Amino acid sequence: MKIKRSDRLVDMTHYLLTHPHTLVSLTHFSKKYDSAKSSISEDLTIIKRAFEDNGFGIVETLPGAAGGVRYIPAVDEKAANHFIEDICRKMDSKERILPGGYVYLSDLLGDPQVLNHVGRMIASQYKEKNVTAVMTVATKGVPIAQAVATYLNVPFVIVRRDSKVTEGSTVSINYVSGSSDRVEKMELSKRSLPSGSRVLIVDDFMKGGGTVNGMKSIIEEFDSEIAGVTVFAEAAYTAKETEDYTSLIRVNEVDMRNRTMSVGPGSYFD
Amino acid sequence: MKIKRSDRLVDMTHYLLTHPHTLVSLTHFSKKYDSAKSSISEDLTIIKRAFEDNGFGIVETLPGAAGGVRYIPAVDEKAANHFIEDICRKMDSKERILPGGYVYLSDLLGDPQVLNHVGRMIASQYKEKNVTAVMTVATKGVPIAQAVATYLNVPFVIVRRDSKVTEGSTVSINYVSGSSDRVEKMELSKRSLPSGSRVLIVDDFMKGGGTVNGMKSIIEEFDSEIAGVTVFAEAAYTAKETEDYTSLIRVNEVDMRNRTMSVGPGSYFD
Repeated sequence: MKIKRSDRLVDMTHYLLTHPHTLVSLTHFSKKYDSAKSSISEDLTIIKRAFEDNGFGIVETLPGAAGGVRYIPAVDEKAANHFIEDICRKMDSKERILPGGYVYLSDLLGDPQVLNHVGRMIASQYKEKNVTAVMTVATKGVPIAQAVATYLNVPFVIVRRDSKVTEGSTVSINYVSGSSDRVEKMELSKRSLPSGSRVLIVDDFMKGGGTVNGMKSIIEEFDSEIAGVTVFAEAAYTAKETEDYTSLIRVNEVDMRNRTMSVGPGSYFD
Repeated sequence: MKIKRSDRLVDMTHYLLTHPHTLVSLTHFSKKYDSAKSSISEDLTIIKRAFEDNGFGIVETLPGAAGGVRYIPAVDEKAANHFIEDICRKMDSKERILPGGYVYLSDLLGDPQVLNHVGRMIASQYKEKNVTAVMTVATKGVPIAQAVATYLNVPFVIVRRDSKVTEGSTVSINYVSGSSDRVEKMELSKRSLPSGSRVLIVDDFMKGGGTVNGMKSIIEEFDSEIAGVTVFAEAAYTAKETEDYTSLIRVNEVDMRNRTMSVGPGSYFD
């Protein structure tokens, strides 16, 4: 049954949004809607314009027999700035300051709307890095990793400090935890990451960067490459043992005595 | 500037999909597109039909001054059956069988497409239960909790067996782990769950149900109610200490000697 343009637009919008970074042939849509490829092309012109005007990202069309259409999620600068300003405002609360200069983030990292924004921003930043997997460390990094992986449409893997029987055999490494100067262990299930992966490391909060260095070693053990390192928040007041990372927000200062904190945009915006 | 119907349809589809369970007034759209409410109503009729025909869920319109439109994600039975058949096929592999009758699931629970399906199915099942928060236990339950919370558009909270300094003060309870018969502890950050919440408990794999019982006790400690209990997979070969739960798949039998496993649809489909 032939489907009307208006109905096609709604369904194609849904399809592209739920299949980011996936090449879809025009034949797929043309068969699904029993419509000529020329009509599908016109639909895609409308969708492309609307996606770009509204800041959802890019709709690429690749010509030729092996061609098709691909949706690449992105965020425009204005929306990104607006979102981060809002987060900084929410962060600016003495209630968040925890002993040891840590910051309570669980409410933000348990809010699907916040995670969707964060995921889209980070995925947008690494959209041309050919990322094939996202890696994080349990537990707090998981929601961010999942959100990023959703927009890049690649799997995510979880490194653990204590492996469980449900992981099967693991590869483990030792690393130096920057904040405590202790040697700690982290492990990743052997079968979870194929060799030759291009891995984007994500985490919730970076103090010294020891955990990130541990993940870098794990990636080497799996004969894979690092596509990038990014964190939701970084503590700007501690020395870092790692370079080449980006952050969405910077906690510039935590004054434990007066229970005040200064928060601003991270290196994502530099 | 007045926006054309085709562009409105694309943007409204995106808006509704990314704001499930949220009442949006017609005025919001009418202002955004500089279009008459009657035009917006016609757009919504098209979207409603397309969403329902394609099985994305329900688009409710509420009349009156306080009215508007609300998108309730749902899945049709055929799509749900098809997805679970596919999962059962993927599960049917001797490579997944781990010592102690555990099953390797990390690949499935690290795949955003699988998680989106699982999240939508579970959110669909509990769509009328007035869920205000999703709860799970670290680490493996987190991706499912996040996926469900995204489609219900409510926060999710993570109970931990080992609380971290980044949680602030916690409430802890003791529970009996069914599989080991040991008394264990679980904790939840005090500020993460408001009293009077209606909580949907989700987890990846249920053997005895001890962990779920632990979460039930935590919910009581927070003066909140249980809206439901649901797991991705349940082991049908172990006695349960809990009732009133649903599962998407059942692992009916694990034969360690011959390394075979029998998997079928869970109680979701009963």
